[in-house]
Amino acid sequence: MGWQPLDLSDVMSVMRADVARVEDRLREEVRVEFPFVGEILQGLIDAGGKRLRPLTLLLAARPFSYDIERLLPAAVGVELLHTASLIHDDTVDRALLRRGRPTLNSIFSTETVILLGDYVFARSAMMAAQTMNPRVMQVFASSLAHICDGQLREIFTARELDQSFDDYRRRIFGKTASLFAGSAEMGAILGEADEPQIQALRRYGENLGMAFQIVDDVLDLRESTDEIGKPAGLDLRQGTITLPTMLFFELNRGNGHYAELVRRVVDGRGATDEDYATATAVIRESGALERALEIAAEYVRQAREALRIVPPGEGRDLLEVLAEASLSRTR
Amino acid sequence: MGWQPLDLSDVMSVMRADVARVEDRLREEVRVEFPFVGEILQGLIDAGGKRLRPLTLLLAARPFSYDIERLLPAAVGVELLHTASLIHDDTVDRALLRRGRPTLNSIFSTETVILLGDYVFARSAMMAAQTMNPRVMQVFASSLAHICDGQLREIFTARELDQSFDDYRRRIFGKTASLFAGSAEMGAILGEADEPQIQALRRYGENLGMAFQIVDDVLDLRESTDEIGKPAGLDLRQGTITLPTMLFFELNRGNGHYAELVRRVVDGRGATDEDYATATAVIRESGALERALEIAAEYVRQAREALRIVPPGEGRDLLEVLAEASLSRTR
Repeated sequence: MGWQPLDLSDVMSVMRADVARVEDRLREEVRVEFPFVGEILQGLIDAGGKRLRPLTLLLAARPFSYDIERLLPAAVGVELLHTASLIHDDTVDRALLRRGRPTLNSIFSTETVILLGDYVFARSAMMAAQTMNPRVMQVFASSLAHICDGQLREIFTARELDQSFDDYRRRIFGKTASLFAGSAEMGAILGEADEPQIQALRRYGENLGMAFQIVDDVLDLRESTDEIGKPAGLDLRQGTITLPTMLFFELNRGNGHYAELVRRVVDGRGATDEDYATATAVIRESGALERALEIAAEYVRQAREALRIVPPGEGRDLLEVLAEASLSRTR
Repeated sequence: MGWQPLDLSDVMSVMRADVARVEDRLREEVRVEFPFVGEILQGLIDAGGKRLRPLTLLLAARPFSYDIERLLPAAVGVELLHTASLIHDDTVDRALLRRGRPTLNSIFSTETVILLGDYVFARSAMMAAQTMNPRVMQVFASSLAHICDGQLREIFTARELDQSFDDYRRRIFGKTASLFAGSAEMGAILGEADEPQIQALRRYGENLGMAFQIVDDVLDLRESTDEIGKPAGLDLRQGTITLPTMLFFELNRGNGHYAELVRRVVDGRGATDEDYATATAVIRESGALERALEIAAEYVRQAREALRIVPPGEGRDLLEVLAEASLSRTR
């Protein structure tokens, strides 16, 4: 046996050169003629995040026929799609911070932000078209449809405590897992994997994405604003019911005081800052975060399970490490 | 010589069956699981408009190899793209009426409207992908980028009287002509026209679109709210400088009173309802609308000129009638 990657930094060091090419191309693609807007978009791209979707796409091709030239447009496309979706989502959330920086909608009018998001969508679709692969374009477009569906579900179920785990799963599939699933699928298609392997990679991406979003929902309740680069406890304030809150509420149905507090906080009307702080604290202490992380770990197991029909080797090892890493991240 | 189409109703009667297929497919594509939203989207599609973009796309294939099955996804795609863009544009404009009906943003939150627009974008991209033709998808995606560019220009040049005809042309190319150009180009590609013919059809669509938008800008000033199905004089109120206003301002630089009035109206601050009414009236009476229509007619001449390398016959006749019809419409 040769060298074994152990954590995300090992994955990143193997992939550094290719991810750098994604970064360069991203910056090129959001170059716009309006000077001030251009700088802001560049800043948004530079602030970056971890490029997990392009990374997933590239890694999904790696056990097969890996050609960075063929993969690059799709890898840039999925990150642009994600960025466009964040731009619109910040408008939806009215968030003032994202990735530790001011959001576009804290600077521009809603009108402008909508159009900037649309523009980044257009650039992402142009990237998908550049693959010249109709199937990749279909996966790409349907991922966008799923994202919108998930975000609409989030709006339509907001402040509703009476929803099932299945409702939650469908929401986060759309909002997050669909693009990880699509990224892995596109990578496998462009890597010329065979059909069962393409399907397996899609399942890998979907399960990875589910785990990723659950961890995100846990971090929202567990970490401080400084650590996650956006306001902590935002989900509760927006009335978005996430897995930890659902688990907490289930555990505390018998506890009238706690149940009442969470109801008030989720409803929003008449909830004070102290209510939010108390609700966050009691959810943290209830064991609900740990239980949610167990469920996330189960998704990671399923992601790894899906990799069984992938040829063993460095490519598969990297995919396994990426899946595990989704559990240990702190932001 | 056989039968000659004379006006848009002749074009529509030739194309009726195929346009009906576009209508049916449109309705299918915006079917969503959220019941209330679904009805509203269906209503928006039913309220319809004249389907000029799908019509342009279909007609552009007609002098060549016309196959409705092959054309249908693209034809539906361009109308969905246009619809998505209207949805976001209504948010931008804060318009309460469109096509004589309440807009989505008079019913839903901005958040929801943004996502519904994104969802319709996604469906349109799925249609483009269904053509299985990478070049069509590239034209499609770049049309969307041009639309955003045009709309952003409109925002960034709002309330600026100091802009050139060239600024105006670039804006309306993006906002309107780019999708007509793209529709005609996609039709010619899918109709298997040769490369010079494809380029000629693109020029046809671009010139048709320019004429169409200029007429739209004239109607905004000339017609009443009832006739155009949206608030009349909206452009002036929003500070959007259109060709008639530019022409009027040029004609009246020497007239201090009129120039002052238009300046105040365009600036918006301190302009009264009476100012808007007076400004609209003096622009109407100045001859600026007639001069703008002459410029539109020149674009139509160029559109017809582009058709010279298209094989003569019914297909080309229909395209010529469509171009002429853009001048005589009243809504």
